[in-house]
Amino acid sequence: MKKHNFYAGPAILPREVMRQASKACINFADMGLSILEISHRSPQFAAVLEEAEALTRELLDINDDYAVLFLTGGASSQFYMAAMNLLAADGTACYVDTGAWSTKAIKEAKHFGNIEVLASSKDKNYNNIPKRYKVPADATYLHLTSNNTIFGTQHHWWPDTEVPFVCDMSSDIFSRPIDVSRFGMIYAGAQKNLGPAGATLVIIRKDLLGKVEREIPTMLDYKTHIAKGSAFNTPPAFPIYVSMLTMRWIKSKGGVAEMAKKNKSKAGLLYREIDSNPLFVGTAAKKDRSLMNVTFLLTKPELEKEFLEMCAAEGCVGVKGHRSVGGFRASIYNAMPRKSVKVLTEVMQALAAKHA
Amino acid sequence: MKKHNFYAGPAILPREVMRQASKACINFADMGLSILEISHRSPQFAAVLEEAEALTRELLDINDDYAVLFLTGGASSQFYMAAMNLLAADGTACYVDTGAWSTKAIKEAKHFGNIEVLASSKDKNYNNIPKRYKVPADATYLHLTSNNTIFGTQHHWWPDTEVPFVCDMSSDIFSRPIDVSRFGMIYAGAQKNLGPAGATLVIIRKDLLGKVEREIPTMLDYKTHIAKGSAFNTPPAFPIYVSMLTMRWIKSKGGVAEMAKKNKSKAGLLYREIDSNPLFVGTAAKKDRSLMNVTFLLTKPELEKEFLEMCAAEGCVGVKGHRSVGGFRASIYNAMPRKSVKVLTEVMQALAAKHA
Repeated sequence: MKKHNFYAGPAILPREVMRQASKACINFADMGLSILEISHRSPQFAAVLEEAEALTRELLDINDDYAVLFLTGGASSQFYMAAMNLLAADGTACYVDTGAWSTKAIKEAKHFGNIEVLASSKDKNYNNIPKRYKVPADATYLHLTSNNTIFGTQHHWWPDTEVPFVCDMSSDIFSRPIDVSRFGMIYAGAQKNLGPAGATLVIIRKDLLGKVEREIPTMLDYKTHIAKGSAFNTPPAFPIYVSMLTMRWIKSKGGVAEMAKKNKSKAGLLYREIDSNPLFVGTAAKKDRSLMNVTFLLTKPELEKEFLEMCAAEGCVGVKGHRSVGGFRASIYNAMPRKSVKVLTEVMQALAAKHA
Repeated sequence: MKKHNFYAGPAILPREVMRQASKACINFADMGLSILEISHRSPQFAAVLEEAEALTRELLDINDDYAVLFLTGGASSQFYMAAMNLLAADGTACYVDTGAWSTKAIKEAKHFGNIEVLASSKDKNYNNIPKRYKVPADATYLHLTSNNTIFGTQHHWWPDTEVPFVCDMSSDIFSRPIDVSRFGMIYAGAQKNLGPAGATLVIIRKDLLGKVEREIPTMLDYKTHIAKGSAFNTPPAFPIYVSMLTMRWIKSKGGVAEMAKKNKSKAGLLYREIDSNPLFVGTAAKKDRSLMNVTFLLTKPELEKEFLEMCAAEGCVGVKGHRSVGGFRASIYNAMPRKSVKVLTEVMQALAAKHA
């Protein structure tokens, strides 16, 4: 049976990317060897790293003021590395708390300097993105989480400030165009729109580095990885390769502007169903709704088991919501076909018809 | 043409492991989904993590005093994490310097406490493992690098001390039985005997943890990963899966004792050729020769190009030596068939015959 993969992450990747990845496990670049067993110093893998960086720059329109790195450790490692590298012990960084990931970012940054939480939507169980706050002009950076996988909210605007943003874009990078010049640093675990778990993308304005006094272990210093082109140590070769394949796919489909158009259309389809179907209700404030993770509840919670069984019968997997919100979550990243979203809305309609 | 993969790392893995990995990229565990796109919280991936830990314990005979973790960041991250977690600011850790990796481990540990380098073979370009040194009884740990990929040396004995060893086994783990009870901690980047780049195995005696005062970011604290069974954050799912497949293969072939027997036989074949062929000479002291990385030079260096061309013509790849030693290096990890080593020795014989 055809599966419709609504997992929040690791998440759906394009079918053709998975086919290419599968082939490379046997014979990569006509070497007669698997990509799993070749030196990261081989010209063939060096070409992968180079293309991954070039595609990142091309797709997001990133200039040479910025370094593009492929690291490990996920966004969870960037929570502390960002502050460790950018925030002086007597400096202040500002954070906006939009959910579980922001909360963790705040916690880890506190090891390194003063952290000021400018706003939080915690009192509303993070159902919105706080809007009314003022960013102190002398802050080192303003940390934002662009998309909140758990709570189904997303930044559709950026604060008006000269302070550079440090932004966790794990779950919506490459889903839409962004003006990189507004950002001091962007980081993203690969395992949503980019690739499989195991690679972490970091985009950082080089002039922000080298300004803190603390000792930083070599592996945790962004300057190390910039100097060595993400190959100071053995990089996570296969996750980077698959990420590169995904970027090739994005480019072949028209780039991030085209992704944004399709993502809007897919999310529109699902939100319209939620808003018109008497059995469902969305959890996020309408103007902050995520185009990546659509969170919704049943108006008759007793139908949950039945709905999930109907989803499973149609091949829709990964629809159960996160325990912090309950209900359901449909993650509809770049690689999710509109057809699959349609299947889910049809299940929702069938449930409503049954209980009309 | 059949390739014989002598790369030092990422390195050869069993053919059947690569075939299984390739299949899992399309359809994993009959889910109708790729392993690259499923949740790390799915029961199917949870089973992979569980089996990976269980196989590590079974193959190396590890009891419950030890935690078994699958992390990211490679051995390069363990260089600082080991000291950060184990070494108090006023404590002393002892290191033996056996090459490039030991040197890096020493450098990174110095951020966290007193580091005493008990012995070094640097004056002989690391062609041997230092033997005559005394370990102070009050040292927190003694750090060793069990196998030196670059210099072709390996520990075939362990120092006589009560001080627990912290050991970088990146390049010979699972190649032979070890008495884990001698070790406080063992760490290994996966990309030699275990799997593809991107996963890092850490085996640690739990009672050694929680004894330092410093603040440790959550992701860098071994206790975090122990508490969450290596799934505090999204683990590098595919590299862990392939590592698990490799461990299944090791088990099916008779375990690490059988690996050791085969490794001795393969290395013996190659060292005998080096010792009997007038054109070649080994670089490592005989009693410290590595069974994993065989380093050797030409007695007539002017034949280097010709030799490498002859290797390439027979499908032998990755034979060029590291710049720190020059000459050649044949890495013959667990998955390297004896047949492939034979092919290399035949090329060496052909070169000698040509220039007799």
